[in-house]
Formats: sequence, C-alpha cells, structure tokens
Amino acid sequence: MGGDLSIAAKHDTIDFFHLLKIMNNTLKNDRFLRALLRQPVDKTPVWMMRQAGRYLPEYLATRAKAGSFLNLCQTPELACEVTLQPLARFDLDAAILFSDILTIPDAMGLGLYFTEGEGPQFERPLKTAADIKALTVPDMAEKLSYVLDAVSLIRRELHGRVPLIGFSGSPWTLATYMVEGGSSKNFSLIKALMYQQPALAHQLLAVLADAVSAYLNAQIAAGAQAVMIFDTWGGVLTTADYQSFSLAYMQRIVNNLTKEQDGLRVPAILFTKGGSLWLQAMADTGCDALGLDWNINIGQARQQVGNKVALQGNLDPCVLYASPERIRAEVGKILADYGQGSGHVFNLGHGIHPQINPEHAKAMIDAVHELSVPYHQVT
Amino acid sequence: MGGDLSIAAKHDTIDFFHLLKIMNNTLKNDRFLRALLRQPVDKTPVWMMRQAGRYLPEYLATRAKAGSFLNLCQTPELACEVTLQPLARFDLDAAILFSDILTIPDAMGLGLYFTEGEGPQFERPLKTAADIKALTVPDMAEKLSYVLDAVSLIRRELHGRVPLIGFSGSPWTLATYMVEGGSSKNFSLIKALMYQQPALAHQLLAVLADAVSAYLNAQIAAGAQAVMIFDTWGGVLTTADYQSFSLAYMQRIVNNLTKEQDGLRVPAILFTKGGSLWLQAMADTGCDALGLDWNINIGQARQQVGNKVALQGNLDPCVLYASPERIRAEVGKILADYGQGSGHVFNLGHGIHPQINPEHAKAMIDAVHELSVPYHQVT
Repeated sequence: MGGDLSIAAKHDTIDFFHLLKIMNNTLKNDRFLRALLRQPVDKTPVWMMRQAGRYLPEYLATRAKAGSFLNLCQTPELACEVTLQPLARFDLDAAILFSDILTIPDAMGLGLYFTEGEGPQFERPLKTAADIKALTVPDMAEKLSYVLDAVSLIRRELHGRVPLIGFSGSPWTLATYMVEGGSSKNFSLIKALMYQQPALAHQLLAVLADAVSAYLNAQIAAGAQAVMIFDTWGGVLTTADYQSFSLAYMQRIVNNLTKEQDGLRVPAILFTKGGSLWLQAMADTGCDALGLDWNINIGQARQQVGNKVALQGNLDPCVLYASPERIRAEVGKILADYGQGSGHVFNLGHGIHPQINPEHAKAMIDAVHELSVPYHQVT
Repeated sequence: MGGDLSIAAKHDTIDFFHLLKIMNNTLKNDRFLRALLRQPVDKTPVWMMRQAGRYLPEYLATRAKAGSFLNLCQTPELACEVTLQPLARFDLDAAILFSDILTIPDAMGLGLYFTEGEGPQFERPLKTAADIKALTVPDMAEKLSYVLDAVSLIRRELHGRVPLIGFSGSPWTLATYMVEGGSSKNFSLIKALMYQQPALAHQLLAVLADAVSAYLNAQIAAGAQAVMIFDTWGGVLTTADYQSFSLAYMQRIVNNLTKEQDGLRVPAILFTKGGSLWLQAMADTGCDALGLDWNINIGQARQQVGNKVALQGNLDPCVLYASPERIRAEVGKILADYGQGSGHVFNLGHGIHPQINPEHAKAMIDAVHELSVPYHQVT
C-alpha cells in the first residue's frame, strides 16, 4: 500500500507540472477570444461586468478579511481569490481582473480613498492648471506592481481554464473623477474645464492616454489575454465633445496597444456607457469589439457596425431581479436580436447589482449557453 | 391740473381694460408657437428648462417667503411670481408654469414631500399590487386646482407677452418615483415590477396616462398655450421597453390632448432625456416637437425626423459655466448645425444648474436671437 501510494504520488507530481505548462499555454476554453475576433464558436460566450463582487457571499467574506476595499485591490492574493470566485460557481467564459478603475490617478498621487456607502474619492483632486501640468505617466513597476502581480497570479491560477481580461478606465472617465474629486452628478467641474480651458483639458487627457496605454500594455505583458477600456462617463458628452475629449484618446490607446502576445491576438474592447449614438465612430478606431449598454437593440447595433467589430452585451442588469424563467426569455431575445453567427459576447449592459441573487446570475449564464447553440450551427 | 389728471386717469383706465382684452387674445410674441409648428419666424425662439429657479436671487427670495418648495408650488400667486421672474430679466420667448413634476402622484394620495438637500420623496410609495390597483385618476378641480389657478393667473399676468407652456411628467417617469419612493440610481424596484409583473406595470402606466391627459387638458383649458411631457427617465430603458412602457403611454396622451384652444393650435412637445436613439418613433406619435438633450447633434436629429416635427434644444447646460464668449460660440454651433429655416426652439438640453451666473444665461439668450437672424432670411 505504502509503495503504491508513493509511486502514485510521484506520478501525480510529474503529471501536475507537465499539465500546468500545457494549461498555461493552451486555453481550454477560448470561446471568448474567438467571439471577439468573430471566429466560429460552438455557443455564445458569456461573462458579467463586476462578476466578482458584492452579490456573492464568498466575496463579502474575502472583503471582510481584507479589511478595506482598497486593501483587497492592493493585495494580489486576495484580488486573485475574488477574481476566481465567480468561476467556481458559474460556467463563465472569461475572468476579469479584480481591481478599481481609479488605480492610475492614485498612482499619479491623487490619494484614492473610499468611505463606507460613498463612491471613490480623492484626497488631492486636480484644482489648478499647475496640478494638471505636474502630472506624469506613473512608473508601472514602481506604482502599480500590485495590479501586475495580481494579473500574473490570476493568470497562473486560472490554469488556462478561461482567458483573463485586463482593463482600465478611459482617459475621459478618469479625468472626470480627478477633477470632480469623486463621483459627480452634473460633471460641472470637468465640463467647466473642458469648455473654458480646452487646451488644459487636452493636456490632462493626453497624459492619461499615455498612462492607460502603458498600464494596459503592462497588464498584457503580465498575462492579460484581452483588454477592455471602460468609458463609464463618455455618455455625458455631446457628439462633438465625445469625439474630441473621449474617443480621440481611446483611439490613441488603441494605436498604442500591444496587439499580440505569445503568438495570440490580444483583443481590445471599448465600452462607452450611454454611447450608442457613436458606435460607428468607435468601431472605426480599429478596436476589436464594442461593449453595449442596454439602450440599443443589439441587432440594430450589429447592422450599424457591420463586420468591423464584435459586440459585447447587452442585457439590462435589472432583468436579473426577475424570475429565472423571465431571465431566460430576455436572454433568448438578445440572442435572437443578434442573430446567426459569431461576434457576440453575452454580458450585462453594466455591472451586476449587489442585490442580485447569485442563482439568477447562473440562470442567465446557463441560458446563454443553452439557447445560443442554434445560432452557431453551420448549415 | 386736477381735472387733467382725472381725465388722464379715466382715459388710462379705459385703455387699460381694452388693452388687457386685446393682449390676452393676441400674443405679442408668437415666435415660440410658430417655430413649434414649423412656420416662418424672424429669429430662433429661446427658453430654458428650469428658467425659474435657484440660479436667480429673486427666486430664492420668493422661495424663502414661501417657507417651503411645496408651498411655493401650491400657492398660485407665488408660482406666478417666480414664473414671471426670468421674463423680467431676459428676452425669453416663452414662460413655463412653475410647478413640480410629481403633482399627479401627490394628488393620487402618495404624499409628496421634500427634505433639504434631498430629491422628492413619497410618504406612501407603491409597494403592493393592491396599492397600484387602488389608484384612480384624481379629480383635477378638487386635487389640482392650485396648478390650474396658477396657470390662469400666469396667463393673465403675462398680458400676451409670450406664450405659456404647461407640462407634466410622463407616465413612465412618474411611475419610477411612485414605485422607488423618490429619486433612484438603478431603478431596480420599478424595473423588477416591469420585468416580473408586466401586466401590473401596464395597469399603473395606463392610469397615469389617463391622469396626465386630464391634467394637461385642464392646463390647456386654464390657459396653457403649449404643453410639454417630461420623460426624464425614459432613457434608462431598452429600446423595446421604451416603446412598451414609456412611448406607448405618451402616444396615448398625445391622442387624448386638446389640439386647439381659442382657435389656436396647442403644440405638444415630447422630451425623453437620453432618448436620442428613438427620435423617429417619438416623431411618429403625432406630437408637434421633440425636446433633445445634448448628446445628439441637432443637425443629425433633424435629418432623422425630417419635416415631421420641430426640435427643441440642445445646449449642454454645462456650457453656461464657460465665459459669455464661449457660450456665444457654442450657441452659434447649434444654430449652424440646425441650419436654415424654422422648426427650432433653442433651449438647454436639460434644466439650468443652480450655480449658473444669470449673466451667462443672458449671454446665451441674446446670442440665440442675434446669431439666428441669418437662418431665417428668405432668399
């Protein structure tokens, strides 16, 4: 018995290391990456914005262990733990780095902090032209190693199960928080800057675009297999201002991004919440996919962008308050609206709400896989 | 001297009553109504959403005198006073009834109240199916006479200077407040109702559509010369849900509205904030004009709706934080984007902010009149 066990153990060890190597270079599930590149898939891939988060009891337990949200983000082992939690529960086709969108302004010295029940805030928001002129692209290895370490660790711990998504806030979105000092209702400070001192606003956005480019490329180097730019507040702009103050800087980032890593294309996804009017312009940046909120019908969006990009979305997160049967019906409608063929990554149109029953998230995810099969059958 | 004065006084009195009669039947400035009906005008008319309000010191003085915001709304003399205040300062082409959008739910028994620094709230929000089933169209004369009295009084006090706009919240927008109990971030309660109990949501919206129809028709009977439906929260819906849960009920109201009063067409304006994707569907309701927020370029909006409706908008309210020179330039861009001919009522894309310097509002209004003349010259 002892001898048998010993042999078995040795054998397992060899297999384990061998397997690990294969796993980390071979994705067991590449449905997400294939759909972003509009290559054939067996079923529509699905993940959820904020899939690691407050609606999961296991997240709340890790969050309590971390002591603070910021500490959770800044401790690679804990960030890795919560990143993987939803994958243990659900049949998700991608993992997304657990982090905050305001890591870059924090690394630039603005002093990010969170108070219970409030949104993010900065100790030192940008108040003067001198504040803006003093900003530089932070040294990634020095200031943001905690993010890059988390990316490497998550990538390793995923064992090739699904791809890992890296992300950043868009320059415009970061700028709103940096100038407003936190969340905003009317965006009056950043817009006053934009309308009254456009050159200064452009200077701020330019340094942010360079910082985001460096940040996303560092995430790719550390193991991120796709990247997403969250332009949460681009939708508060006019069409002309969106072009000049948000999209132009996302364009600059798309131009700067590492396109291939370890022989694989690294797709880039742009998401402007409230940006459905501007999908064609966004597709023209050369990104691989667009995130959609829930305003636009995904079939109409597909007509607009044609074969230029894949589409990710677009279930109203509030549908998850309804029964599993109703959730399934709404998933079915979006799949039907998108129609035949690849190029669709199913997702919510914005982050999952903290109040959602995890079983309802599961109902959505399972419905996507089950109901999408007919749309991918080659006839 | 005494005799002279006496004769003069008598003469003045006769003239005054005569003049009053003429004034109230003859608009001295009908630019606003003509533009809504796409009839030729000499220059583009302009008014501002929330033109009576917290950015004006005289408003704050009346508000202090009233004791509370609700008392200000419910006292016709005070509502009239603040309605007229911006017209004393600025060369505006329309007056809009000073009131709150939640008067109907209040009249339905929900108990509207305001606490300092908070949005509107209800003492008795809708919590059960029974709450919704118990709702009926309130008796206008009994429950909303304070609004109708304010309309009559303002109309009289305007002496035909400019037309008076009546308004209401849209059924969907009223329903959000009634179910959420006040302002909402995610609209999770109303959407849970919509997705889980659609028949009940439709029942609520139907009674609200009938109440809004009766309310606007009562305002028209009392003297409102145009009406506007504010669908402040239609933009949080999907395209399909917007059609079913918001637009269908605005359609019902448009069908119900009094189309003519005292021999004059009473134009109806629909405004869905965040609704730029749905302008064609809105125009198909048979309304006279669409309000635009600032997301869409007004020239593109005009292309979409063709000659079906007039357009009202669409300056970003934050432009008023900039210098008068910059404000003037932004006004010029919108006028140029709209282009030649009538059918445009200049406005902000949403309400003026409380922090705005009234001189900046004046800069906008004057720029509209000055810069728009060339677009109305018949060649």
